[in-house]
Amino acid sequence: MAVGPATLPHLHAVPGFRLGSASAGIKTPGRLDLVVMAIDDGATVAAVFTRNAFCAAPVQLARQHMQQRTPAFFVVNTGNANAGTGARGIADSQQSCQALAELCGQSAEAILPFSTGVIGEPLPLQKILSALPTALADCDELGWARAAEGIMTTDTRPKAASRQLQVDGHTITVTGIAKGAGMIKPNMATMLAYIATDAAIEQTLLDKMMQEAVTQSFNRITIDGDTSTNDACMLVATGRSALATIDSMQQPAFAAVQEAISLVFIELAQGLVRDGEGASKFVSVEVKGGADEQECLKVAYTVAESPLVKTALFASDPNWGRLLAAIGRAGLEQLDVNTVTVAINTVLIAEQGCRAASYTEAQGVAAMAADDITISIDLGRGTGSATVWTSDLSQEYVRINAEYRS
Amino acid sequence: MAVGPATLPHLHAVPGFRLGSASAGIKTPGRLDLVVMAIDDGATVAAVFTRNAFCAAPVQLARQHMQQRTPAFFVVNTGNANAGTGARGIADSQQSCQALAELCGQSAEAILPFSTGVIGEPLPLQKILSALPTALADCDELGWARAAEGIMTTDTRPKAASRQLQVDGHTITVTGIAKGAGMIKPNMATMLAYIATDAAIEQTLLDKMMQEAVTQSFNRITIDGDTSTNDACMLVATGRSALATIDSMQQPAFAAVQEAISLVFIELAQGLVRDGEGASKFVSVEVKGGADEQECLKVAYTVAESPLVKTALFASDPNWGRLLAAIGRAGLEQLDVNTVTVAINTVLIAEQGCRAASYTEAQGVAAMAADDITISIDLGRGTGSATVWTSDLSQEYVRINAEYRS
Repeated sequence: MAVGPATLPHLHAVPGFRLGSASAGIKTPGRLDLVVMAIDDGATVAAVFTRNAFCAAPVQLARQHMQQRTPAFFVVNTGNANAGTGARGIADSQQSCQALAELCGQSAEAILPFSTGVIGEPLPLQKILSALPTALADCDELGWARAAEGIMTTDTRPKAASRQLQVDGHTITVTGIAKGAGMIKPNMATMLAYIATDAAIEQTLLDKMMQEAVTQSFNRITIDGDTSTNDACMLVATGRSALATIDSMQQPAFAAVQEAISLVFIELAQGLVRDGEGASKFVSVEVKGGADEQECLKVAYTVAESPLVKTALFASDPNWGRLLAAIGRAGLEQLDVNTVTVAINTVLIAEQGCRAASYTEAQGVAAMAADDITISIDLGRGTGSATVWTSDLSQEYVRINAEYRS
Repeated sequence: MAVGPATLPHLHAVPGFRLGSASAGIKTPGRLDLVVMAIDDGATVAAVFTRNAFCAAPVQLARQHMQQRTPAFFVVNTGNANAGTGARGIADSQQSCQALAELCGQSAEAILPFSTGVIGEPLPLQKILSALPTALADCDELGWARAAEGIMTTDTRPKAASRQLQVDGHTITVTGIAKGAGMIKPNMATMLAYIATDAAIEQTLLDKMMQEAVTQSFNRITIDGDTSTNDACMLVATGRSALATIDSMQQPAFAAVQEAISLVFIELAQGLVRDGEGASKFVSVEVKGGADEQECLKVAYTVAESPLVKTALFASDPNWGRLLAAIGRAGLEQLDVNTVTVAINTVLIAEQGCRAASYTEAQGVAAMAADDITISIDLGRGTGSATVWTSDLSQEYVRINAEYRS
């Protein structure tokens, strides 16, 4: 299951960033499962990694390598997470970096490794080493769509987003791909995502743009509240466009490019939710009227992660009682239920602590029948607001996760 | 589904506490759905109610009545929660108290109302009023088993526990019943539970015993992380035994009776988990070696509420990677994964951040095949400890909650 159209948008090439894919036969013979991304000299690169204390070997190594220099290559395998694999996992990851480094005349520190898939099994290193030359030879600025496929695990479809904007008479491109359908939890980079732009962006400003974009996108989604050991999000600015380097937040180009980057991030994040394991609904939980953003996020996540709300969404049941119960247990100090209103899409369902006077069950059923649902909650006690995106909880989610060894 | 034997233990009568059940036809014709409990004069009564801000009308009223006097009667209906019902809900609840008060020559404040079932629909007051005389006439010290049935909602079986102890040559009895199978979330009274003892216990000490018992039992379970709007737990000390009144924590009787009460609470709490919606496993998550109890609880709940851990338990899959991932995201400051060990029942599965050297998949599969699973986690950084009980997440859970309008 997945929500909404499955077709990829047109993916604009980003000059200075090339992607190559190959089939290493890591888990499923014949499918693309190894991706190499090549970054031309002169780029800046920003990274966000999982905050899970049990982070995988490639994450530990990628963090180290990032501290030593700007990366020249990413190497991504799917089918095996190389997590919970101890010292051997680190050695395996190092060897795959070393092998790619030798193939392209770089030092191993120039390579960032990424893995996703089953936890706790040793990386099939030989398969990866054998397929590396093919992936490297495949590298092309038009390789985005194949790479989006090559990083998938339980995803039912590739996720990619791309947009162009004009800044000071120059065309700037932002294109990205992401994977992730389960073990999706907010407040970290909760998946693999690779986004590149041909704008030239000074390193500290690129880091800033990354934080802003992640906060608005991947840190606002939750599928099952679980956080992966392998999450990473990479943002590359190749600097190949003719636009002058962005090196001040005062430049109009900063805001324009930030907006384009954030929109690509949001589209990718929503794409993950739409393809959430077993998802049959795409749900926006919009909370306003809180004392501050933090309070609104608390309510939004409590609603978005409530198994009872999620099963009601799966059943297309306008079960406003469960919504009120979730809001009521979100832990807000002295919440006055009389000031709270709740709507599903445009239908007001609850006010003053109980069912809205105007509400009819027929309205609720009609609203819940849609694939895209917006739950709007007004806490009526302040000016804060926050939105979180999530999916429903279906029997299919249980089946996938009971059968798949992640 | 439910885990373990379904037979009720022998339920000892508690002199001074009588229970009567009737069939009011609230939701399902013919089943017991209305229970009256009568408390003789001279008892002390302690209460814990839900902390959900959207608490139901009967909870609001019961809280008020408790402040005014020691209750003489509880009246409990199932099939309708009288929650999210606004002013009408309060009036309905008041009327049912008033009606019972008139039948037995009491003031309305002497009655505590409790409701459980569907949220958001008006209470079928007439049905309740009509059945009240029957329930009242049925009141008997031997009425425990029928009452355990009469308070059920999606429960597949009644829950009750009973034990006797000798104190200073006197037999003291503690007997209790509870209901609840979904919307079960720790740190509140998360269900309906009624426990009585014939010991005489001074009010402040009874309150203390209640807090201690709840902390060890109902506040240590989680089925789906959701908290009901209607939860309540009542502890009655009728004082009808010949044992002198317990009015000091220094009395040996205090510790002895506290222990018996706590054990009954724990048995009831575990009974709820064993009958958790769609449960096929009873899971104890035992965490030790944390800096303090709070830290251990954080890890225990993160593991117990992780959908990925729960689906692996459902699949009897020794998926230790998901256990490590859950521990790793519990938010502990500077957790050193190298000091963490994880065992399932007696099988050591993970140490030093990865699979234990001694572990074999065959051992893991054998351990996970049991109905009762203990996940033992040693954080290796302190002397704190905590245990939480939970169930697994099955397709049956989703089916129940997609089909049932709670």
